[in-house]
This record gives sequence, structure tokens and C-alpha cells, in this order.
Amino acid sequence: MTGIDTVIDTVVERAAAAGTKWRATPAAERATILEGVADALLKHLDELWPVADAETHLGEVRLRGEVGRTASQFRLFAEVLRDGGSAEAVIDHADPGATPPRPDVRRMNHPVGVVAVFAASNFPFAFSVAGGDTVSALAAGCAVVVKAHEGHPETSDLTASVVRQALPDPDLLGLVHGFDAGGPLVRHPLVSAVGFTGSLAGGTAIKGLIDQRPDPIPFYGELGSVNPVIVLPSADAAAVAAGFAASLTLGVGQFCTNPGLIFVPEGPDGDRSGFEGAIGDAVAATTGGRMLTAKIHDGYLRAVDRLSGRAGVARLATGAAGTAADAVTPQVFSVSLEAFADGLPELGEECFGPTAIVVKYRNLSDLPAVLRRLPGSLTATVHAAAQVGGQGAGQVGVQGADQVGGQGAGPEEAADIVPVLERLAGRLIWNGWPTGVAVTWAMHHGGPWPASTAPAHTSVGAAAIRRWLTPVAYQDWPEAFLPPELRDDNPLGVPQRVDGHLRT
Amino acid sequence: MTGIDTVIDTVVERAAAAGTKWRATPAAERATILEGVADALLKHLDELWPVADAETHLGEVRLRGEVGRTASQFRLFAEVLRDGGSAEAVIDHADPGATPPRPDVRRMNHPVGVVAVFAASNFPFAFSVAGGDTVSALAAGCAVVVKAHEGHPETSDLTASVVRQALPDPDLLGLVHGFDAGGPLVRHPLVSAVGFTGSLAGGTAIKGLIDQRPDPIPFYGELGSVNPVIVLPSADAAAVAAGFAASLTLGVGQFCTNPGLIFVPEGPDGDRSGFEGAIGDAVAATTGGRMLTAKIHDGYLRAVDRLSGRAGVARLATGAAGTAADAVTPQVFSVSLEAFADGLPELGEECFGPTAIVVKYRNLSDLPAVLRRLPGSLTATVHAAAQVGGQGAGQVGVQGADQVGGQGAGPEEAADIVPVLERLAGRLIWNGWPTGVAVTWAMHHGGPWPASTAPAHTSVGAAAIRRWLTPVAYQDWPEAFLPPELRDDNPLGVPQRVDGHLRT
Repeated sequence: MTGIDTVIDTVVERAAAAGTKWRATPAAERATILEGVADALLKHLDELWPVADAETHLGEVRLRGEVGRTASQFRLFAEVLRDGGSAEAVIDHADPGATPPRPDVRRMNHPVGVVAVFAASNFPFAFSVAGGDTVSALAAGCAVVVKAHEGHPETSDLTASVVRQALPDPDLLGLVHGFDAGGPLVRHPLVSAVGFTGSLAGGTAIKGLIDQRPDPIPFYGELGSVNPVIVLPSADAAAVAAGFAASLTLGVGQFCTNPGLIFVPEGPDGDRSGFEGAIGDAVAATTGGRMLTAKIHDGYLRAVDRLSGRAGVARLATGAAGTAADAVTPQVFSVSLEAFADGLPELGEECFGPTAIVVKYRNLSDLPAVLRRLPGSLTATVHAAAQVGGQGAGQVGVQGADQVGGQGAGPEEAADIVPVLERLAGRLIWNGWPTGVAVTWAMHHGGPWPASTAPAHTSVGAAAIRRWLTPVAYQDWPEAFLPPELRDDNPLGVPQRVDGHLRT
Repeated sequence: MTGIDTVIDTVVERAAAAGTKWRATPAAERATILEGVADALLKHLDELWPVADAETHLGEVRLRGEVGRTASQFRLFAEVLRDGGSAEAVIDHADPGATPPRPDVRRMNHPVGVVAVFAASNFPFAFSVAGGDTVSALAAGCAVVVKAHEGHPETSDLTASVVRQALPDPDLLGLVHGFDAGGPLVRHPLVSAVGFTGSLAGGTAIKGLIDQRPDPIPFYGELGSVNPVIVLPSADAAAVAAGFAASLTLGVGQFCTNPGLIFVPEGPDGDRSGFEGAIGDAVAATTGGRMLTAKIHDGYLRAVDRLSGRAGVARLATGAAGTAADAVTPQVFSVSLEAFADGLPELGEECFGPTAIVVKYRNLSDLPAVLRRLPGSLTATVHAAAQVGGQGAGQVGVQGADQVGGQGAGPEEAADIVPVLERLAGRLIWNGWPTGVAVTWAMHHGGPWPASTAPAHTSVGAAAIRRWLTPVAYQDWPEAFLPPELRDDNPLGVPQRVDGHLRT
């Protein structure tokens, strides 16, 4: 074995040993420990953010907020464990009179084993060593080995030491560094599943390594997204332009939910009045900044260069660079719907950074066919007249295409588009912006490839725990060996489905 | 395009068009239609089984039973749809006072799109055109295109015509034939997920094709299993031997749950008294039969040949061939635990057919280390003193290894083995046999590779529907466009998780 192989072997074997005890720790105890991690992160906030700022240039406000979000994620999963629903306990009693006779069968979820996590560049806390993959895997009862992102190694080390203080065994959270660590980590026989947040190229490479295993294991990759925004004719141009420019340039555009495509009605005679002009003016007034790493910086410049040379694509506006060293400028381009369609699939690819394409359509009815050709996305957003946002807006049936009255105001404008978006993206947003992902029970952060390698699963929110769980069914099993979640007297009070009936 | 490409293209496009209406059909209506399919299958039972018998040689009793099981699966999924829990509706109301403010987010499952299903050789009904993959996908709201198994093409055609009579659109169930159809089917851009039941080699090939797609889609393959049986010293040798021989030879051993390994205590001085002798006698008294296809027949003979030549492996017993044309004989081999361990991984591979290896152990404490080296399995079975089977047997804590009293009678004998089995197999059976998979809410038919390509999922039972569903989250979405499952007034009465609390 080479040096890095030996290191990985040691870290994974220690994690597996620690994981054997952790998986046998009752869920309620795991919940208390996760809350202890949340406390530890907040206690060390003043030490954590400056180290991350030096490595990522993301600034105090953002980084303090991100540590808070990271701690909140630990609290959410403590709540998930106390609820008990993630065990998915199901009990079918025996039916000796059935044809054929039915045995007693009981099923619940168990931890999958050691989870390898690849940290992301753009969230040094919330999608890194103590991020959503790590906390959901720990909650599931798995040990974790994180491959630190090269962009913030010191932040990674410091975070790991803070988290380990609150864990019953520091080996539950392994940490390895360096590009070369990725291969041996995903190939290790004791690693049972892999989580990844990063680029399509990086995710594809890891998938290739996993597929070479004698036992290809589950791979949950979130590979980024172009996040189309569809602006309906009834929307307010000034509000859309301001909101879009802010979402586009937040964090120097370095979010997997960054809005990279915005479809707007074309102004009269194709001129720059209306949406296109307002968006150009708003982006021209923005300021860029320094990107996370030199690699990301160079990739952004190359992507913008490629865009500006494409047929039918015009530069619409460029923001200011700002005063930071190596700062990049926000840039938007515009293109007709026809030229955009001709430029697919390339024009539908994500450009990581503060750039987007404004796609101008003449007829709303032309949009569905083009939207169907977009790659899978984490989000899709609709903007319409402000008063129809929120709950309880109207009574339009979503299947009633014949009720659509063309380009009038109101939600009915979107009737032909909504079914297309439901198949395109994992999260649909009305009159909002895709950046900002709430960490809640209902959140879904996923979508068809390349948004995710496993579109049935999410990397954010309570359901993220499911990626690290595998069911075990027990047939005519002695009560002595049944997990408490599956006993008839339900000593832990978890939700159980008994003979087909869900009981909370 | 070649001829087969054109055929596949037409069938998939028609399925996709039919699927667009089907996904918009309310779940309660889909339930009624599934019940109509169950009725149609039973109505045509007298026509269905003889066609299948001519192609598979499985006999009237088995095939009538299998059509019944197939109809039951349609009824179970009608029940699943009426329950509504598979929608997994989650509602988080907005919290404008949170930091940062939380939007209203609601999530539920939607159908993934057109599902390609590869039918199995060994269940011409229950895992074929109208099998578990098809019914769970139809229940999810997906259109299905089945690649018929070459072993029963006429059964496939007849089944499809019966099912289509009960569907609102015959194009919802496409059917294609021939080995060459598989590639274009899994490569088709409108196919969104693939289900497969078959061999490790076949599944690996399909996985390779899917991985070459520009958008690798989910692959749910059940690739077979060696299904270890662990016989504890307290078990009754005569009962174990009789049950094992029956399970081994059921359906000429052609089940993915066939018990291919049985670990038994070695008799005094290694002689043939006790378990080994009883198993040899029981298998010698069995009769084989004709296998499903010539390919399976040849594969069985090759596998048995390979086994008989391996170091330390002795032929223990051979059953009778019986009178059927091309009938094969059941065969069992025996080997010491040490020689078995030396022969891994090859000795842990599945041999499809009525053959198994009897592995003799001297000390129960030697077993866990060897069991940990076995490949993932659909099932693992424990046999112990008969009186401790079933529910309510004892009070032994599963984590209490220090409470284990060695090889005495009672469930405590299994204390060190149970945690190993929980990581080895998807279904654990006590004092029973793995053949026979109940179609119920709690069933799990899956396991680590190669039992399954997706160990979090099952291909049998109510949870099988989840493979064909993908979540969509709606953020601040107008009520006019919200699916009824996500409305606050819950008009369909589905289980909802509201602000973290599960409500049934």
C-alpha cells in the first residue's frame, strides 16, 4: 500500500470500530449528542469564522450565519431522532389463515455503515466537515470519514476538533486531506455509501471510482444546477430585476442554487425596455468579488468567455469587480428563445459564478417545449404578479390547460409550465429566489441528473437521513432480538405502521 | 436508427404520452384501476397458466398460485394508494420570525417518469410483465415498458393483453422482446428509471449501459443471493434437514431466495452423525427436475462441476433427477469452516439451482468472522431450538455479548451472530426458510450488493413503490397549483407531517 492508502485504511478502520458502538446507541442518546455538537460549534464560533474567512474570503456575516445554520442542522436531526419516524417501523402480524400462510414480518431502518463525505468548496461549514451529509449520517447511526475540501483545510481541521469534543468517540468523525485521498476512500471495503457536493466533473469522477468497486455502493452526489427562473408577463420588472441581481451575485454567485437562466418576455420590437433592460441595469449596478479558489476563478472566466462567443448570445451587462484582490465581475448575457434552443445542451450547462443568461420569449406557449429540454435542476422558479404569491391565491386546476387565458395576469398564466417544472426540478419557488435553502422537514434539495445522482433523495432537510439507512425485515424473529422500535408494546413510542395502519 | 431502435422508440414514446395522463390521474382512481387488473388476471387464470407451463415447466399448482400472488400484488398497491402514505406529504408553514426567515415549504412524491422493467426468468407472472416492478411503477403513476424474458415470450404477450384490457390506455404497458431490445430501452432519453430481477452478470451489464447515458438514471436491480442459513447447536437436526431439503429443491432451486449455504455444528469426531448426516440423507431423498431454460440448465451444471473440484469441498449427497426431460439432480457439498473461509469469495457466490454447501463449524464463536466476509444477501436464516421461535420468547438484550452463555439452548446462542446478520442481509428469518416472500407492508426484499444495486430499496412489498417516486418541494407556492395532498385542508385525508408532527 502507498502512504495515502495506509492513512485511509487506518482512519476508516477506526471509524468502523467506533461506528459499531454508535449504531447500537439508542436514538435518543444520539439526539442528545448531536445537540452537544451544536452547542460546541456555537461555543467556538469566534474561533471558527476567522479561520474560514482567511481561506474562503466569504466574510464575517456570512460565515457566522453559516456556523449558525450548521448548528441548526444538528438540532434538526436531534428532533428527527426523537420523533422516531425515520426508523420507518412496520409490523405485519402473522396470518396463518392466509393462502399461503403469512409469517410475522417486521421492518425498520438500520445505519448503512461507514459513510464517506466529500466536502464542498462553497460552504466551509454547512456542506463540509460538520455539514448536512455528516450530521445526517451521524444521526442515522453511521460513522463518517470526511475528505476535506482543498479550499479550506485549516477550517476543516478546526471544525473536526470542535465536533469531536462532543462525540463519545473521536474516531466517529474521520478526516482526510488531499486530492489523492478520494480514490482510496471510496474504494475502501468498509465504506458503505458516499456523499458528495460539488461539480459535475468531480461527481462523475467519483461515480466512476465507485462503479469499479467489486460491490458498487450507493453514491449520493449533488452536482450543481442551472436553476431556471421563468418570469411571466404579469410580473413586475423592477422587482424581478432587483431580486435577480441580488440572488445572482450573493456569495459571488458561488451557490449550487444560483439562478443561471432567466426566461423573460421580450419587450416591444425586441428593444431593451421591460424585463431585459431592467435586469441589465440591475446587474450593471452589482459588485463581484474574490472567488473561493484559483481553480473556481479560472473556471468562471473560461465559462464566461465561452458564453460570449456563442451564436446569438449578446453581452447584456457587466457589474463592477470591486476592490478585492483577483475579484471577478458579474456578467449577464441575453439570447432569443430560438437561439437558446439551438444552443442546447451547452447553453443549459451550469456556469459556477455570478453569470446568467437572459432568454427572451415572445409567446409563453413556446416555453414548455424548451423547458423540457433543460437538464435536471435543483430548483425552478416562477415569477408572476406579486398579489398571487403565497397560499390561498386562486382556484385554477393544474390540469386545466383549456382554462388558460393566454398571457393575462394571475397564476393561470403558469398552468402549462407547472407540470413541466415538476419533472425538471426538485424544488419549485413562487415569486422568490432559489438561493437560500431552508433546513426543515419538507425541504428537498435534489432533482434529476445532474442536479443529483439519486433523484429520490435529498441532501438538505430531515429526509437527508434516509440516504444512510437500509431496511432490515425480521421474519418470525424472537422478541429477545427485536429492536425496541419493532416491539408490539412500542416502548420508545415511535410511529409504527401496524397491519397496514399508520399509528403516531 | 436500426429496426429495434425504431421499435423501442415508438413503444417508449407512446408509453410516455400515456404516462402524462396517468400521472395526473388521482391516486384513488389509479387504485380502482389496479384492482381491475387483479380481477382481469384471475378471470383469465385458466388461459394464463397453461401457456406459462409450456414455456417454463413450473406446473399447474405453482403457476396458478403465482397468478394469484400477482393479482394480490395489484390489490396491495391499490391499498397503498388509498392509504396515501406513499405520497409522503410534508408541510412546513412559513416562519417569518426565524433567522433567516423561513418560507412555506411543502413536499410530496411524484412519479419518476417512464420505467423500464426487465422481467425475470423464474417467475413468469409475479416478477414479469405484470410483476412487482410493473405494479409498483403503475401505482406510482408511471408508465412501464417491459423487456420480456426470452424464457416465456408467449406468456408475456398474453399477460400484457390481459393487463391492458383493464388499463385506461394500453400504451401504459409497453412490451418489447429480444436480447437486443435491452440496450436501446435503457438508453432511451424518455426512460427515467430501470427495474431488473436476474443474474449478477445481467444486472452488471445493464448497470454498465445505464452508466453510459449522458444522464445516468436510477437502477434498481435484484441480482440474486446465496442466502446463508445458520443452524445453532440447539436446533433439531431432523427438522432442519427436512425443511432445508424442501426449500433447496422447491421449484428446482430456481429462486433468488434459495438457501445456498448452511452452517451446521460438526458432529462428534467429524463423522456423519448429526446435522451433516441428516441433511445428506434428506437431500438424497429429493427429486430434481427440468430447469427453466437451456442457459440456466447449463449454468447449473457448470457451477456444480466447479464446486466439486474445489479444495476441501466434498460431495455430500445427490438427489434423483426424476423423469422430466433434461432433468437435473439436487446436489449438496460439505466443507469445513476453515476450508470455506479459504475458498472465499468464490465459495460465497450464488449457484442458481438446487445446490448448496454445508459448512461445518466446531465453535459457534468462529462464525461471526466468516459471516462478515460473505457477500450481501437477500436473506439470512437462523435455526435454534424450536420452542424459542416466534414472538415473546425471551429477554436477552441484543447488545449484551457478555450475557451469552456459549452454546447452550435458547436464543442467547445467537447473540453474537444477530448483529452480523443485520448488516449482511435484508431479511432475517428465525426457524423458517427463505423461499417464499410475503407480499406485505413490512416486507423487505433487498440487501447489500450483489443482493441489490440499491440497498435502501425493496422490490417486494408496499415500499417497492418508493423506487419510482421522486420528491418535489413547493416553496411559497400558490394553492391553486398545489397538489391536494399538500393543502392545509387535506381533502384526500392522506397522512401529512405538518410542522414536524406526523398526522394520520
